[in-house]
Amino acid sequence: MFTSTIRVRTQCEGDVIDLTDQVKKIVRESGIKNGLVHLFVQHSTAALTTIEFEPGVLEDLKRALSVLAPDTAHYAHDTRWGDGNGRSHVKAALVGPSLMVPVSEGILMCGTWQQIVLLELDVNAGRERMVLCTIGGE
Amino acid sequence: MFTSTIRVRTQCEGDVIDLTDQVKKIVRESGIKNGLVHLFVQHSTAALTTIEFEPGVLEDLKRALSVLAPDTAHYAHDTRWGDGNGRSHVKAALVGPSLMVPVSEGILMCGTWQQIVLLELDVNAGRERMVLCTIGGE
Amino acid sequence: MFTSTIRVRTQCEGDVIDLTDQVKKIVRESGIKNGLVHLFVQHSTAALTTIEFEPGVLEDLKRALSVLAPDTAHYAHDTRWGDGNGRSHVKAALVGPSLMVPVSEGILMCGTWQQIVLLELDVNAGRERMVLCTIGGE
Repeated sequence: MFTSTIRVRTQCEGDVIDLTDQVKKIVRESGIKNGLVHLFVQHSTAALTTIEFEPGVLEDLKRALSVLAPDTAHYAHDTRWGDGNGRSHVKAALVGPSLMVPVSEGILMCGTWQQIVLLELDVNAGRERMVLCTIGGE
Repeated sequence: MFTSTIRVRTQCEGDVIDLTDQVKKIVRESGIKNGLVHLFVQHSTAALTTIEFEPGVLEDLKRALSVLAPDTAHYAHDTRWGDGNGRSHVKAALVGPSLMVPVSEGILMCGTWQQIVLLELDVNAGRERMVLCTIGGE
Repeated sequence: MFTSTIRVRTQCEGDVIDLTDQVKKIVRESGIKNGLVHLFVQHSTAALTTIEFEPGVLEDLKRALSVLAPDTAHYAHDTRWGDGNGRSHVKAALVGPSLMVPVSEGILMCGTWQQIVLLELDVNAGRERMVLCTIGGE
């Protein structure tokens, strides 16, 4: 197993960071030709998924997440802790922290219009996010 | 590691395809008795999850997804690209492309009422969908 | 590969069970220092994710799930089968049954405020839930 950490500095709530090229680079470094890449974001107010990395879709995704956890709703988390990121936790728990993508003949097997993205969901901006990358295979 | 590809031809938006029997067949072919099966759909307008494969629930799931991404909403993706599948991308990113299920004594360990399904979310019908299947274990 | 089963008795719909300590214990028992822990809930009305295990956020998450699948909506599943848990199936399919977390130097690599949780989503209470745990690595 080969491991590496991707560190991403985000600027503000709603940032979507395309990690695909960094994951491809780690796959090359690993020398693993056939296997699986696992990604895990080590935070409770960020999430991982795949999407077509295109500004229109990213905006549409943000709106869908705000249906689940509107900016204007009351959050019990915020009442208790006062950090104002109740909506961030909710969105992150629903999208999830974990993603796995196959590698075949050294190639990361995402579809043509399918990029690996980190969603910065926290209202408290300017964070460094850690994505743990583990590659198993041969 | 054993790999195989499931090819599925879908007919229209909202199709839900039960992949469980095909995954069981691949598990048998692999000869792997104890391990994990990973599934990955190589597209940004389809998704994988588990559900009870029963027409009522499938209809209920469709309605829930349309709360997130209603047919009648405006999509920035559609304005930019004109292919009308903004809602498809949003739903797929939220459900996710990746799923992993254990294998024990050669048996795929889904629950009795828990089937592995592909969700066809694209409005542009009649596609072939590729699900990459990777089995690790012994 | 090391396998173990976590059995959880839930009390009622909306219960959120923190599995983190049990997963850490299994990691220790496995003796695996570097690898991946996979968790799979073997049911179609329960789900796995990560979240900050804090009562406020858990309440906020419940409200978000009820946006997707409101208590008062009509469910085709309930009409057909009469077990009243249509909303449970829908929520479980969207959150998902599967989660994978890295292990490094024997430590489960969740973030500080990031716990592994089982969501009991069924309206029919008092169930034993099985979470299959598979650890691969060295």
